[in-house]
Amino acid sequence: MKNYCLQIAYDGTRYDGWQRQGNTGNTIQGKIEEVLSRMTGTPVEIQGAGRTDAGVHAKGQVASVHLETDSTPKEIQEYLNHYLPEDIAILEVTEVPDRFHARLNAKEKLYVYRIGIKKEVFERKYRYSYYEPLDVDAMCEAASLLCGTHDFKSFCANKKMKKSTVRTIYDIKILSDENEICIEYYGSGFLYNMVRILTGTLMEVGMHKRDAKSMPEIIAALDRQAAGFTAPAQGLVLERIKYEM
Amino acid sequence: MKNYCLQIAYDGTRYDGWQRQGNTGNTIQGKIEEVLSRMTGTPVEIQGAGRTDAGVHAKGQVASVHLETDSTPKEIQEYLNHYLPEDIAILEVTEVPDRFHARLNAKEKLYVYRIGIKKEVFERKYRYSYYEPLDVDAMCEAASLLCGTHDFKSFCANKKMKKSTVRTIYDIKILSDENEICIEYYGSGFLYNMVRILTGTLMEVGMHKRDAKSMPEIIAALDRQAAGFTAPAQGLVLERIKYEM
Repeated sequence: MKNYCLQIAYDGTRYDGWQRQGNTGNTIQGKIEEVLSRMTGTPVEIQGAGRTDAGVHAKGQVASVHLETDSTPKEIQEYLNHYLPEDIAILEVTEVPDRFHARLNAKEKLYVYRIGIKKEVFERKYRYSYYEPLDVDAMCEAASLLCGTHDFKSFCANKKMKKSTVRTIYDIKILSDENEICIEYYGSGFLYNMVRILTGTLMEVGMHKRDAKSMPEIIAALDRQAAGFTAPAQGLVLERIKYEM
Repeated sequence: MKNYCLQIAYDGTRYDGWQRQGNTGNTIQGKIEEVLSRMTGTPVEIQGAGRTDAGVHAKGQVASVHLETDSTPKEIQEYLNHYLPEDIAILEVTEVPDRFHARLNAKEKLYVYRIGIKKEVFERKYRYSYYEPLDVDAMCEAASLLCGTHDFKSFCANKKMKKSTVRTIYDIKILSDENEICIEYYGSGFLYNMVRILTGTLMEVGMHKRDAKSMPEIIAALDRQAAGFTAPAQGLVLERIKYEM
């Protein structure tokens, strides 16, 4: 058995997210495992770095998998791309040390949320269209107050979460031009729906429905009700994952 | 009545092309006329610069239209964008001199055909995927022999074309990187399916099924059978139209 690392891009529009749900469910993980199982003739389980929600996209998802095969990494990539649907692409396959685990070894994840502020045709499925004015300066002020290591329970959609809800956001960068507002989230890891709830909360600041200075209070509440709405999945993309090996 | 010029972008995937077909048909022209008629309360006819085929996209289609309205150009644009579907966007509306006609006054059109040579997720609907090797140098040589003023009857899908089939191609530029081959066609105007047949012919040169030097013969044949296949609509986009006013 050798260990492989896959770099993956997908359009999440028609999938129920990354993570396989039992033996059913239309998931990215399920699709890739199905093709790898066919290739090797044995059941295969892959480990994805980020468990993207239904409808969320990826340009730089990473997964690791142990395979019994004589194929080269290039051949594995070609086989996968040939049999996977057109909305899932394997960008690269490399052989990695046996102990490498795509999720456990991830050091930093970058998620990008794009808000379309002007009608645009070709990017429409990868942005959330919102044509009312948003105060980007206020959003930037709020964003800076969300960075750091905090218990982000208020930004977690999973009420039954038993594990720690402490995470570190290294930075949030907000870029804007006449067409879109793009929010980049750099963090150690993110809770269920966390990036989308952060985005909804920042948007409510931009709408002047919340004060930028209220972010510490929302964090301190440790209550999902204290934060803003969950921004739609289609604007979110898992952009990149960093490792130190 | 004032005369207006519209800059239009659309994803042609689900349309039967630009040109309205009687009162029926799911066309871009029809969709825009429908909204303008609703806005003004009278039937409206718009003149598009390029009659794109079914499935062909546009980033810079131009249309002119005479309207009886008190609305400002900005208000007309906003009304259109509000009522048009998400895959048609009005980029700009300006008032123009009464005699301006989007098709008759066009001086140069730029069509771009994109061939995807590596699996890619987010651009997949706007490229034609072709993963076998293509000899780009040979395609460039052939392209240079297609430029100039010629009778392009061999590259016209309409056999009953009664008007002149003489057109001028100012330039064909072929750009390529590891992901795609992009062919830019600059011309005075193009016949029905002409850009797609030129592309199919250039691709056959790239596959070494035809000699680059055979282009003059194909032109001289004045016969559609002499040219190559019609490349699929989805790879084509009407990029820009130039006017001298």
